[in-house]
Amino acid sequence: MIDFRSDTVTRPTPGMLQAMFAAPVGDDVFGEDPTVNHLEQLSASLFGKEAALFCPSGTMTNQIAIKCHTQPGDEVICDHLSHIYQYEGGGIAFNSGCSVRLLQGDRGRITAAQVAAAINPDDVHKPATTLVSLENTANRGGGSCYHFADIEAIKQVCLKNNLKLHLDGARLFNALVAKNETCRQYGDVFDTISICLSKGLGAPVGSVLVGPADFIKKAKRYRKVFGGGMRQAGYIAAAGLYALEHQIARLQEDHNHAQILVTALQEKDFVGEILPVETNIIIFEVKGRFTAPDLVTHLQRSNILAIAISPTQIRLVVHLDITPAKIQDTLNVLKAL
Amino acid sequence: MIDFRSDTVTRPTPGMLQAMFAAPVGDDVFGEDPTVNHLEQLSASLFGKEAALFCPSGTMTNQIAIKCHTQPGDEVICDHLSHIYQYEGGGIAFNSGCSVRLLQGDRGRITAAQVAAAINPDDVHKPATTLVSLENTANRGGGSCYHFADIEAIKQVCLKNNLKLHLDGARLFNALVAKNETCRQYGDVFDTISICLSKGLGAPVGSVLVGPADFIKKAKRYRKVFGGGMRQAGYIAAAGLYALEHQIARLQEDHNHAQILVTALQEKDFVGEILPVETNIIIFEVKGRFTAPDLVTHLQRSNILAIAISPTQIRLVVHLDITPAKIQDTLNVLKAL
Amino acid sequence: MIDFRSDTVTRPTPGMLQAMFAAPVGDDVFGEDPTVNHLEQLSASLFGKEAALFCPSGTMTNQIAIKCHTQPGDEVICDHLSHIYQYEGGGIAFNSGCSVRLLQGDRGRITAAQVAAAINPDDVHKPATTLVSLENTANRGGGSCYHFADIEAIKQVCLKNNLKLHLDGARLFNALVAKNETCRQYGDVFDTISICLSKGLGAPVGSVLVGPADFIKKAKRYRKVFGGGMRQAGYIAAAGLYALEHQIARLQEDHNHAQILVTALQEKDFVGEILPVETNIIIFEVKGRFTAPDLVTHLQRSNILAIAISPTQIRLVVHLDITPAKIQDTLNVLKAL
Amino acid sequence: MIDFRSDTVTRPTPGMLQAMFAAPVGDDVFGEDPTVNHLEQLSASLFGKEAALFCPSGTMTNQIAIKCHTQPGDEVICDHLSHIYQYEGGGIAFNSGCSVRLLQGDRGRITAAQVAAAINPDDVHKPATTLVSLENTANRGGGSCYHFADIEAIKQVCLKNNLKLHLDGARLFNALVAKNETCRQYGDVFDTISICLSKGLGAPVGSVLVGPADFIKKAKRYRKVFGGGMRQAGYIAAAGLYALEHQIARLQEDHNHAQILVTALQEKDFVGEILPVETNIIIFEVKGRFTAPDLVTHLQRSNILAIAISPTQIRLVVHLDITPAKIQDTLNVLKAL
Repeated sequence: MIDFRSDTVTRPTPGMLQAMFAAPVGDDVFGEDPTVNHLEQLSASLFGKEAALFCPSGTMTNQIAIKCHTQPGDEVICDHLSHIYQYEGGGIAFNSGCSVRLLQGDRGRITAAQVAAAINPDDVHKPATTLVSLENTANRGGGSCYHFADIEAIKQVCLKNNLKLHLDGARLFNALVAKNETCRQYGDVFDTISICLSKGLGAPVGSVLVGPADFIKKAKRYRKVFGGGMRQAGYIAAAGLYALEHQIARLQEDHNHAQILVTALQEKDFVGEILPVETNIIIFEVKGRFTAPDLVTHLQRSNILAIAISPTQIRLVVHLDITPAKIQDTLNVLKAL
Repeated sequence: MIDFRSDTVTRPTPGMLQAMFAAPVGDDVFGEDPTVNHLEQLSASLFGKEAALFCPSGTMTNQIAIKCHTQPGDEVICDHLSHIYQYEGGGIAFNSGCSVRLLQGDRGRITAAQVAAAINPDDVHKPATTLVSLENTANRGGGSCYHFADIEAIKQVCLKNNLKLHLDGARLFNALVAKNETCRQYGDVFDTISICLSKGLGAPVGSVLVGPADFIKKAKRYRKVFGGGMRQAGYIAAAGLYALEHQIARLQEDHNHAQILVTALQEKDFVGEILPVETNIIIFEVKGRFTAPDLVTHLQRSNILAIAISPTQIRLVVHLDITPAKIQDTLNVLKAL
Repeated sequence: MIDFRSDTVTRPTPGMLQAMFAAPVGDDVFGEDPTVNHLEQLSASLFGKEAALFCPSGTMTNQIAIKCHTQPGDEVICDHLSHIYQYEGGGIAFNSGCSVRLLQGDRGRITAAQVAAAINPDDVHKPATTLVSLENTANRGGGSCYHFADIEAIKQVCLKNNLKLHLDGARLFNALVAKNETCRQYGDVFDTISICLSKGLGAPVGSVLVGPADFIKKAKRYRKVFGGGMRQAGYIAAAGLYALEHQIARLQEDHNHAQILVTALQEKDFVGEILPVETNIIIFEVKGRFTAPDLVTHLQRSNILAIAISPTQIRLVVHLDITPAKIQDTLNVLKAL
Repeated sequence: MIDFRSDTVTRPTPGMLQAMFAAPVGDDVFGEDPTVNHLEQLSASLFGKEAALFCPSGTMTNQIAIKCHTQPGDEVICDHLSHIYQYEGGGIAFNSGCSVRLLQGDRGRITAAQVAAAINPDDVHKPATTLVSLENTANRGGGSCYHFADIEAIKQVCLKNNLKLHLDGARLFNALVAKNETCRQYGDVFDTISICLSKGLGAPVGSVLVGPADFIKKAKRYRKVFGGGMRQAGYIAAAGLYALEHQIARLQEDHNHAQILVTALQEKDFVGEILPVETNIIIFEVKGRFTAPDLVTHLQRSNILAIAISPTQIRLVVHLDITPAKIQDTLNVLKAL
């Protein structure tokens, strides 16, 4: 199977598996797992932050961040397509008791002006606006990347209005590679960042939340109460560590593969609008002969897995298990359709 | 002062005040206040429902209804301008831990097709959709009224998808009078209805939630934990009882007054688009010579109070303290502007 | 009926009813009800606090205070019999997401040493202890009063450990009268105090929360989201205002009546241990001929209402509707039993 | 180091480690991890339940169970020393908004009579009692085991009062081995059971929740919103699977080791009361020459780690990393003290 459903489906590379197998471990609830500690220290230092926290999922790192930054009854500003609103089980309300102000961004990216206009006045009828959360790259925006200057402008609005700024960086490394940016730039502008080790980076499990030391101390409390405290977690942390040390630069390859696919898709009569492809995600309209679910079925018969994210849209995600050979196979299938 | 800011500013009529202070009372926490009991029984029977609960505010009746109908992690479908989302302090998330799916209705009114399209699939990433909440008349829609057939169509979607249907009827009686509809019609189609006694009906304090007996039993628990259980509440319930018995039909007078004002406003060069006026609320654009806040200031100098609900929009609400003489005074002020 | 079930069953005195009837009112959600404003200012100044908030119930003032002082996941220290744990519908967990550390006090009164020993260490397994809540008089302690020095000792523990100190003063005025203490003493030592107007003070509805200005500002948000914002609330606030101005000193009369009843009870063979009676509450064991529910039934046949708070205990509460004549009638009934 | 602090500190045996890295994996969020699926099926079938859910920790399985069984405002009955109340970060209130009714059990074990007496009446002042949670073995009871007949009696109370019955089985396998009981017995009597793979069983990470199919479906939603959904979780699930298949019977060895230690402790003058040792946990009083923290320090100098659970109590936990040689070393150290 050639699995384009998500970059979460990857299996560890041999080097990563070897690293996992050899990892020194301890009881992380006592703070004694050397591999977890190493991963947290490395993550923090990459972003120039004081501390970091390893968690079983990106949903948990995002949800903990939202919880730490807010109080029940507050309001979070984000794009209406953002993962924290669309795909985390309603956690903003469930875990934090917070309302959402959903902005209509451009492919998942919102602007400083939109944020400024969305801040609630000091009025008991309205939740208090306390947090802005961005996503980069934006999944539902087709892997779109922010211009860093636009992020800086949003930061200014946050500073002026005493709002915290969180980044859902599930695919941040794709953006860094695509835009030639650095972790430090992001660490400087965001209060907290969640990075995912199990998407493009290819680790089997886990995400890391980075931020100030007192924030991470508080975050550790919420990780415990959510049930995210693990014991000898070093086995899985080792994979993340390996990914950070060896598998960032190769994301460029996924982006190149995505461009090859786009070129092939553009020639097909059943392909309508394709969202601009900036990283490893391709979202395209299906028209004419097929509905999106039809096309998914057709592709599956040729051993290609994809997801219809709406009745007329398909998403393809390229990742490290999509080898050049699989790209070639996919091109052949597309040609034959 | 001629106060068009809201229909909540009314003071009791002499008859109502007389009824309040003659009311037999008891300790309602023990269920022994005869006036509260009378009000609850009358409210329930008006709508053909089994039971009712008197609460200190419409926010509480709405919030209790949402709480009873949902579990934390569920999602509520409503118009993006609805009171439950815009003006209840973020209570959907705070009190119930629920997410919102916000629809772009027509002047606050949503359709069956919109509701059907907004129901989440059975997927752990998504909150479970369990409740639809309508508002009639819709405050931010300029007092707009639903066509009853449209409500019935929404009800069909709810039945097919196992969703509950709640009505924020803060100004339901305005809709009933305007559309010549009955309480029973609404009781038949909605699972629960919140009616407000302190808006057009002119009581000083209180709202009533009507619904099935087991629902109201559960609602009583939440009223207690929210702190809404009151002792000799009969003094204020008496005002609501008086209102239901004597002050519904007169809402037509407010609607007539609103039409007189609209006609006068249409002739003013500084008045732009006026939302269709169906009941007692007038929302109009301010253009040319004035901004909306400017005009509010000018009006205030002539003893007229209004609210700028946006930089370019003013809302006027007509109510029982706006006598024919005050309408005449207002026309004079408008003429002179 | 001679109703000893609770001091919440009282009806307004003629003077109070007159004050209610004559109260100037406005829309308190706009902050424009002069009577509510007057009551809040008087309450704050009595206790030497900056601000106050009028709410529909003592449950709401307590629950708002707990909510303002804590964050979800914190822990509240209180006596295991305290009203906030026993009779507020589980609100500490429901409204605030907080755990409880329940102390075994002496008739509802806990000590500084107990508090000090109950503070959790800084450990993610444990909720963070942030609030201590006392109750004076203690309802389930039989109207027991704290020694003020014991409160001051608890305050020292709070200061040393960065804990807030709240008072559920539902019957605080009974304590003040019994111990010859002042509101100012209490205002000086507690961060926030909830006082109830509808118990011994005899108003039909309402409680007041006093505290620092920024705290009360935050409290107003929670009152809104709980649904406690009322419109022309002056009618009921007027009763509370009247009570504070005219009906405090007379609580001594209730205490005297309670002593008369105790003396009579002590002579009855079916009366076992009587908790020391310091104010207006009498809790006694029933033994021999009767169970507690039996005795309640017997008393009811003689038009006396009481509550069996356990299979072997009855509570009698004396209040302003228990006139000297009713005390005499009660003595006669007791004699005849 | 000889680490008696907890049975959570174990490292995988060579066989377990081999099983982990040979595990077939997939994306468990898509339900496609064969090893996770295998572990869940095995766990369910062991207990005769329909379904199971793998989670990163026992705190998560317990917290999800409590959440699924209750609604906010409900009350949970449990022993005052139970893990769910003492060591899960206040999660009962934080995650579920539920109150606790804390019973004074006998070494962590409560009785049917206590449960029956603790059920709240149907009264809005009181939370609704809906769940009873037991812990077997009871950690803070010194690894004490229930008599199965006592559990069955509690079940009868639950059935009669419509309460759910959950088991925190973090160390259930120790109880099964000690009392010669079966998983099926427990599956028959409890609605849901949480078992921990990372304590005596020796896996590095993870717990499993077993219960009815519809319950586990709901549980999966909460696992997602808590952030417990992991991707290629098979690597850690494999360890749990190996543990269930190979490392249950050996718990008897830990229990034997515990008895050897007890005998040695009984001879020391600084050892006071030792709680009856039924499984792998030893809790003893320290008296005379040492305080508990003193003794911990002394032991640490001899490379023995233990925890002072109170100023006068030490807990030792025996587990698979405590070899016979380490037991001998410990005896030598004790002799020399």
